[in-house]
Amino acid sequence: MKMNKGWWLVSRPAGEARVDNFRLVESPAPAIAEGEILVRNHYLSLDPYMRGRMDDRKSYALPQPLNEVMVGGTVGEVVETRHPGFRVGDVVVGRLGWQLYGKDDGRGVMKVDPTRVPLSAYLGAVGMPGVTAWYGTHHIIAPKAGETVVVSAASGAVGSVAGQLARRAGARVVGVAGGRDKCRAVVEEFGFDACVDYKAGRLREDLAAATPEGIDGYFENVGGAVLDEVLARMNAFGRIAVCGLIAGYEGQPMPVMNFRSVLTSRLLVRGFIVSEHMDVWPAALEGLGELVATGQLKYRETIAQGIEAAPEAFLGLLKGRNFGKQLVKLI
Amino acid sequence: MKMNKGWWLVSRPAGEARVDNFRLVESPAPAIAEGEILVRNHYLSLDPYMRGRMDDRKSYALPQPLNEVMVGGTVGEVVETRHPGFRVGDVVVGRLGWQLYGKDDGRGVMKVDPTRVPLSAYLGAVGMPGVTAWYGTHHIIAPKAGETVVVSAASGAVGSVAGQLARRAGARVVGVAGGRDKCRAVVEEFGFDACVDYKAGRLREDLAAATPEGIDGYFENVGGAVLDEVLARMNAFGRIAVCGLIAGYEGQPMPVMNFRSVLTSRLLVRGFIVSEHMDVWPAALEGLGELVATGQLKYRETIAQGIEAAPEAFLGLLKGRNFGKQLVKLI
Repeated sequence: MKMNKGWWLVSRPAGEARVDNFRLVESPAPAIAEGEILVRNHYLSLDPYMRGRMDDRKSYALPQPLNEVMVGGTVGEVVETRHPGFRVGDVVVGRLGWQLYGKDDGRGVMKVDPTRVPLSAYLGAVGMPGVTAWYGTHHIIAPKAGETVVVSAASGAVGSVAGQLARRAGARVVGVAGGRDKCRAVVEEFGFDACVDYKAGRLREDLAAATPEGIDGYFENVGGAVLDEVLARMNAFGRIAVCGLIAGYEGQPMPVMNFRSVLTSRLLVRGFIVSEHMDVWPAALEGLGELVATGQLKYRETIAQGIEAAPEAFLGLLKGRNFGKQLVKLI
Repeated sequence: MKMNKGWWLVSRPAGEARVDNFRLVESPAPAIAEGEILVRNHYLSLDPYMRGRMDDRKSYALPQPLNEVMVGGTVGEVVETRHPGFRVGDVVVGRLGWQLYGKDDGRGVMKVDPTRVPLSAYLGAVGMPGVTAWYGTHHIIAPKAGETVVVSAASGAVGSVAGQLARRAGARVVGVAGGRDKCRAVVEEFGFDACVDYKAGRLREDLAAATPEGIDGYFENVGGAVLDEVLARMNAFGRIAVCGLIAGYEGQPMPVMNFRSVLTSRLLVRGFIVSEHMDVWPAALEGLGELVATGQLKYRETIAQGIEAAPEAFLGLLKGRNFGKQLVKLI
């Protein structure tokens, strides 16, 4: 009998999330019925949106229920099948959660080709984070050649792709990231034109120096002080894609002081969540897969080892300790 | 010889604008050259945007120069002409400023028909404020039948028209205005479904009671506390047209606390200035003129008497002492 291990959410955070909000539960792997498959997950994706699900407040998604396996994207291998469309050995991406085994009726998973790009990339540059970057960049910011685009959390799974896509569209791209090492990689690995280290204590001056002609597009993952400094430098008719506001995910107050720029620079500001734009996924995945397969789109991963490591890795992600896509290797 | 009187801006405000930022200057009416007309202004329009022009900071328009006649919309009568397209007695709207007489080469004015709607309406419901309401309502908010639209400064020249247009599109429309008298008129004269008096000290509760199904569209003229309370009640995929932020025009800090809603409710927020959308003016003026001429669109005016009264009337406008369109009668 296959034994499963999975992390449940057992309490909601009061302020910062903590390891003891989760509990590791062991149980037999689920039995499958006719029309179902059993998947052995190889990688679990950890993403900032999960912090929002831990709370019980109004948001775009229902809260994660208590005493159930945490939600999460996964990639793995079919190990049992009673579904005519799947064979043992098929590789699938899905949302089977923080656990070793999960079952599905075939509608919640998608078969992928692990020979074209590495398996883990289907959770990053060729998965939800990549499509998020694609949507915000191409469908909201829509950069024109010669414009300046700023990307916050630029070394992250979404930001690193967003900046590369904007640059391919002809924009001058400036990242914002935390620390010298991340900033160096944003420029040297991901090919951004410049990167501002927000931890260096000179955010305003450094951003001004990096964006001498102002800012036309902003891919927002963070909020807080970075948002305010960017708002102050937005050019007329600038576009801001609001993809995440991680600075406020732990419930911290996040006053925006320069909202006035929305009027004075006639900005377009749009919040979005990529799962509501399924129509763009096929083209985006096709485009991103091609770019990764041909080495034209770079990405980084931080990989925690073993299901036991998931909560610590997740809390580290919220503090920006990861570099690129945060994954947990489950096998 | 015709004597002119006009208000110059002679100093920039430190904080609140004051009467002594202006000086009344008398001089002969300007002589006209070949191809020009001289206009005797009948009404001067006072508008919140003028406060922004008094400062010397980044905005959508250049600052009002010191020691020149204040900018402003006017409607008046041609009294001298050396232009083949204009006759003495023609009625024209233009931007001839805070003065009795102004000249133009014909490209800055537009002939209007004073028999169809009252002359002063060309500065209000059938002028710049009306087109502003039209653009924000139809081109940004685009209300659908059954949706809830909130309009701040609902008794003002722009807000009163915006609400009526949204209601004609089938929305439930809730105004926000200052004081019981204004709120009563917003409902009884302008036909809004409800109005919240922000001076009553129960903004959150009253707004919640007036918008039981949340808010789908917001026409923003004010900023500050009203914006934050509205943000907290926005429904998924709501639209916010940012037309004005009068709460911050005197340089007051205006932190926005609920920016998070842009993400959680996937909002579209767009700042605009109507003079950058000249393509919509002909259709808007046609539509608004028809609605006013047939009594289907209501408006109110507050009229100060005589050019001397302009600065006091303008400062009153910034404090919300006007009701509807603020004008100065010059003849």
